[in-house]
Amino acid sequence: MSSIIGNKLKISLFGESHGEAAGIVIDGLPPGIELNLEYIDEHMKRRAPGQSVLSTPRREEDKYSIVSGYFQGKTTGTPLCALIYNENINSKDYNEIKSKIRPGHGDYTGFIKYKGFNDFRGGGHFSGRLTAPLTFAGAIAMQILQSKKIYIVSRIKSIKDISDDDGINLHENEINRLTKMNFPVLSSDKLKLMQEKISEAKENNNSVGGVIETYIVNVPAGYGGPFFDSVESKLSHMIFSIPAVKGIEFGAGFDITKLTGNNANDEFIITNNKITTTTNNNGGILGGITNGMPIVFRTAIKPTSSIGISQHTVDLHEMKETEINVAGRHDPCIVPRVIPAINGAAALVILDLILERDGELWI
Amino acid sequence: MSSIIGNKLKISLFGESHGEAAGIVIDGLPPGIELNLEYIDEHMKRRAPGQSVLSTPRREEDKYSIVSGYFQGKTTGTPLCALIYNENINSKDYNEIKSKIRPGHGDYTGFIKYKGFNDFRGGGHFSGRLTAPLTFAGAIAMQILQSKKIYIVSRIKSIKDISDDDGINLHENEINRLTKMNFPVLSSDKLKLMQEKISEAKENNNSVGGVIETYIVNVPAGYGGPFFDSVESKLSHMIFSIPAVKGIEFGAGFDITKLTGNNANDEFIITNNKITTTTNNNGGILGGITNGMPIVFRTAIKPTSSIGISQHTVDLHEMKETEINVAGRHDPCIVPRVIPAINGAAALVILDLILERDGELWI
Amino acid sequence: MSSIIGNKLKISLFGESHGEAAGIVIDGLPPGIELNLEYIDEHMKRRAPGQSVLSTPRREEDKYSIVSGYFQGKTTGTPLCALIYNENINSKDYNEIKSKIRPGHGDYTGFIKYKGFNDFRGGGHFSGRLTAPLTFAGAIAMQILQSKKIYIVSRIKSIKDISDDDGINLHENEINRLTKMNFPVLSSDKLKLMQEKISEAKENNNSVGGVIETYIVNVPAGYGGPFFDSVESKLSHMIFSIPAVKGIEFGAGFDITKLTGNNANDEFIITNNKITTTTNNNGGILGGITNGMPIVFRTAIKPTSSIGISQHTVDLHEMKETEINVAGRHDPCIVPRVIPAINGAAALVILDLILERDGELWI
Amino acid sequence: MSSIIGNKLKISLFGESHGEAAGIVIDGLPPGIELNLEYIDEHMKRRAPGQSVLSTPRREEDKYSIVSGYFQGKTTGTPLCALIYNENINSKDYNEIKSKIRPGHGDYTGFIKYKGFNDFRGGGHFSGRLTAPLTFAGAIAMQILQSKKIYIVSRIKSIKDISDDDGINLHENEINRLTKMNFPVLSSDKLKLMQEKISEAKENNNSVGGVIETYIVNVPAGYGGPFFDSVESKLSHMIFSIPAVKGIEFGAGFDITKLTGNNANDEFIITNNKITTTTNNNGGILGGITNGMPIVFRTAIKPTSSIGISQHTVDLHEMKETEINVAGRHDPCIVPRVIPAINGAAALVILDLILERDGELWI
Repeated sequence: MSSIIGNKLKISLFGESHGEAAGIVIDGLPPGIELNLEYIDEHMKRRAPGQSVLSTPRREEDKYSIVSGYFQGKTTGTPLCALIYNENINSKDYNEIKSKIRPGHGDYTGFIKYKGFNDFRGGGHFSGRLTAPLTFAGAIAMQILQSKKIYIVSRIKSIKDISDDDGINLHENEINRLTKMNFPVLSSDKLKLMQEKISEAKENNNSVGGVIETYIVNVPAGYGGPFFDSVESKLSHMIFSIPAVKGIEFGAGFDITKLTGNNANDEFIITNNKITTTTNNNGGILGGITNGMPIVFRTAIKPTSSIGISQHTVDLHEMKETEINVAGRHDPCIVPRVIPAINGAAALVILDLILERDGELWI
Repeated sequence: MSSIIGNKLKISLFGESHGEAAGIVIDGLPPGIELNLEYIDEHMKRRAPGQSVLSTPRREEDKYSIVSGYFQGKTTGTPLCALIYNENINSKDYNEIKSKIRPGHGDYTGFIKYKGFNDFRGGGHFSGRLTAPLTFAGAIAMQILQSKKIYIVSRIKSIKDISDDDGINLHENEINRLTKMNFPVLSSDKLKLMQEKISEAKENNNSVGGVIETYIVNVPAGYGGPFFDSVESKLSHMIFSIPAVKGIEFGAGFDITKLTGNNANDEFIITNNKITTTTNNNGGILGGITNGMPIVFRTAIKPTSSIGISQHTVDLHEMKETEINVAGRHDPCIVPRVIPAINGAAALVILDLILERDGELWI
Repeated sequence: MSSIIGNKLKISLFGESHGEAAGIVIDGLPPGIELNLEYIDEHMKRRAPGQSVLSTPRREEDKYSIVSGYFQGKTTGTPLCALIYNENINSKDYNEIKSKIRPGHGDYTGFIKYKGFNDFRGGGHFSGRLTAPLTFAGAIAMQILQSKKIYIVSRIKSIKDISDDDGINLHENEINRLTKMNFPVLSSDKLKLMQEKISEAKENNNSVGGVIETYIVNVPAGYGGPFFDSVESKLSHMIFSIPAVKGIEFGAGFDITKLTGNNANDEFIITNNKITTTTNNNGGILGGITNGMPIVFRTAIKPTSSIGISQHTVDLHEMKETEINVAGRHDPCIVPRVIPAINGAAALVILDLILERDGELWI
Repeated sequence: MSSIIGNKLKISLFGESHGEAAGIVIDGLPPGIELNLEYIDEHMKRRAPGQSVLSTPRREEDKYSIVSGYFQGKTTGTPLCALIYNENINSKDYNEIKSKIRPGHGDYTGFIKYKGFNDFRGGGHFSGRLTAPLTFAGAIAMQILQSKKIYIVSRIKSIKDISDDDGINLHENEINRLTKMNFPVLSSDKLKLMQEKISEAKENNNSVGGVIETYIVNVPAGYGGPFFDSVESKLSHMIFSIPAVKGIEFGAGFDITKLTGNNANDEFIITNNKITTTTNNNGGILGGITNGMPIVFRTAIKPTSSIGISQHTVDLHEMKETEINVAGRHDPCIVPRVIPAINGAAALVILDLILERDGELWI
């Protein structure tokens, strides 16, 4: 697996935060797909830094360059490689971390795994920057799924202790509305409160996290499998690849453990000659396989690890304890920028599951 | 992946609840491992039904038969296949479900995926019965890990709304004590309350779920990887393969989203010339890679789907709504029996990660 | 890959020559296939020992037992596991090889790889016996392909220095005729000469090898891929898995190196509104992808390594040179018995390629 | 698999002949390897066109640009991506083939597989140009293997009907000498005759092929596996990925079928306290596993498909027969330029096998 994932649709991720480029090879795209570059740009822009006063002032356009697998405006069916060259890099901000490991980051574990040879600048290969090519690939997957009326939408369910209202309505209009919001929250009151929490953290040189709720709508019943091909297995594998994720739950998730069986089970009914369920505590997945209901999952995003507050740590070279203050341009809350990565990552999984079962005859 | 998972240590799962056998092929075991059959039996017994008045009266011994890869009491290094023949099967209990799909189960989704050809009896390939061979393979992995002082232990963190005390202590003694308990809970008061919840559910022909907390102790720093090889990705992929799992979280999990960055980050210190962290909110994993602290995760187990209460459902053949009462011998709470499956599944992932990085020179 | 291979259709091979059983898990079979057990038996019988005076007197029926994935006479779509229990085993014949490594066999390399723990009896996991479950799985693949008019047929192209006539004719009649022959040779004169060579080798306690030529007919154009998915890559990977294979060539093979470009290239023409080629020097594969012409390849099978002639070797325990005479019941020529394994193995590759591209919508 | 291959060391190939770039991601390289850029350049140069009057005048420097996984002159252990930008491209030479399929090439099969959307210019993704990034990756693998005294060397065994002398001597001197020759042939007389054959083909606007013999020296015993992990399976899978390869054989190869068992078997002896064999008919591989002897294989390379002679073909758009004359700058014989690709490809397989068994502890 390594930095490669997928069965029929494979992606191979590469790059470092402060190296020459981050990029991705997408292998297994159907041929003849006319890429909607504007649509892709929209997703890239949502993920890019510097979009709001609440995010890092590091402003990058995240312009991608497609170097293969794309001919006369369409996918060729051969591997598509895209690069995002790194610009606006200020390496000297990171000089300190060469030896001081930043709490919450992969500095220490990367040092051990790569025996000190990994590019430590800005987190190197561990950087959230790698979600840019992932978002690029995910946007292509989303475009293909949408042509089959499969939509993916996320909202911010909570920031710190502020939660959005219950009850998302999944009409195409609302999906589109949320998709276009940089800070997608249903309740405008809660949205304001959440942003206040972030501003407060920013002022304090601190950070906050939150929970993202994602819906995948119109996946027909029958995709996935029991055991290692379960939709939960595939989605969780992919979602935990995104930096800062510490939990995932499907349907009612951890709360389902507080129900009794008769309330937890989703009863079956027939609606318009189609089998559906009255509730969706299982999040659209039964026995690891889609049941036609929306796939619903929530992802826990930890507070940004880089903070402007002094913290206890270790200097690896001198092997002694010290203090670190992670100066630099960081987001007080990464949650809004993670959304396009989660949507795209989920799209890659779903498209892979569909292509794997139905093959290219599906397109 | 399908019913096969793993990189260097692969398992291939097969079988049905009411077919001739369930089984597993384990490919990539190091040669020369003297299997501790008593140890394996203990794990199998914990998973087996009929161990307590609180579980299903379906009593199976889950005796396994090793048919390959095992010679003169030791692993050969070639694929080890073990079968667990099905006995004590009462197929007529399940006749009704041939057409009536059971809420909460994979009956409907399996019917769609396999076009009606799957063995529907007792859930067929979807059955929790398949966790028997998984537990078998997992016990072997646990035995190998223990020879390197890596221990895996779980406790019941909650049943319905009753939670165990905080603060597990990970001395080898406590690990051994919890490992031997069929119902591993720290607080004897809470244990009693939890069991009352289960008894109550049983009396009502209903069911309850809970949360299992798992610790993997003494894994050195440096295993796993950023992105698709992250320890969270690998463990979650495997754990969601176990029926009834609806959520997983690492370290502080969803609660980490309620902390500010300075409290969420685990600060580094030096203890006995070794780098550790003061807290373990990241659950032993940073940047997808182990940091030497205990790997901690919690798994949400939904209430047993099979209940003796009438529920609304659909008859697939007549394509009309109807009622179902899932008679039969079922557990009012599956949580205690899931523990050996989770422990074993986690062991398979960790052993695979170690063998993949260090190869056979590790042994 | 290990003892597992395939993408959409995976097989997992296990077992030892003198252990309890050899077997296979087939994962990814489409559901609802009514297995033609007679057809499978025919293939198993062709591979089984003791079918002719020219083969080993070790007489085994190779009866398989399907323990999962098969319900009411049809595949369920879940993993199908079949076991072939070992009978009629005479382990004492092999006692000598515990320390004396047999020339031409995997005794020495297996000893090194498995550190002396592998089951050495009869070659253990290295035994040609493992081609029995492979042939079983392959026969199922052949049955499925035949339902789409894709046929696989092989003939003995040569035994030692005796070659069959050129010019196979691929009408269904001839395919059926060759498929039913235990010793499929076009020319009856050559057939006789070949059998004489084998008899002669038998009398001398020696052995001979030969070349098998295989045709896969009616695979449509468009399967496979450039580079690592090339049909040649996939087929060669699989065919070299079969013991005793030392070479493979496609189309004109090594002889194409003696032609000039204008004679080597297969010119395109239109026949019945379909694009075909005038010659088939590329063996039905261009750029790694099928072109609709018959896929043709030849496989070199070395002389049976077990011979009743004294040979120089090493005693591993005493680490000194010695002599060995591999007594026992062996084939003077393994070629005829390898054919069903090659046909079946090729069928597994082709079916995997088709299912991978077209998915289950193909069936 | 697709355009990705490998277990522990994975490569992901992308690009088109006349697109922006060809490239490769190498995933799983050990960290801290100081790349010998001169050594890599040497291999790239041997593969590059325009090195000799006998090859195509299309002169490309094949300069690679490493964009990730490489820091301060050393590998980081994270994915290393290298790009080779296409220059000196003359697309108009290829306009004709948009509709006329070139005999011997993947034009027709690519058109079918990719539904007409693949980049047809210069063969697109099918182009031999893709062996440039493969050679780059392979040179890195060779460098790593050499640091462990494992050498890979090839010679031209034959061009058309001219064969080199038997009896390669594998001292480090000869290995180095052959490695540096653009046209590595032992006998200078035969070398001259081979080059005359090529010149003759060039004058006639025709082409010739040949056989390459490759030696991998000093791989210890114990790598590979029975069945699908056999060294023959792995090497053949990789080698057939290289365009123009139509056959592969190990050790005595097809000629072993003409020997009797007593002559085919390699007898074991003890030399300097090490087990070796007196002959090497099995090409260093027994039971799919290395036995410590040199791994020897021969690869059949067909005559260059592009020739300046008029050939019969089909115009896909008009769906009628026509003539084609593949004008352009082509090699009359591709054999010498294939050698660095074969050496490198073989090195990638061997390094993967070693890393898979021994892990990073090997380095």
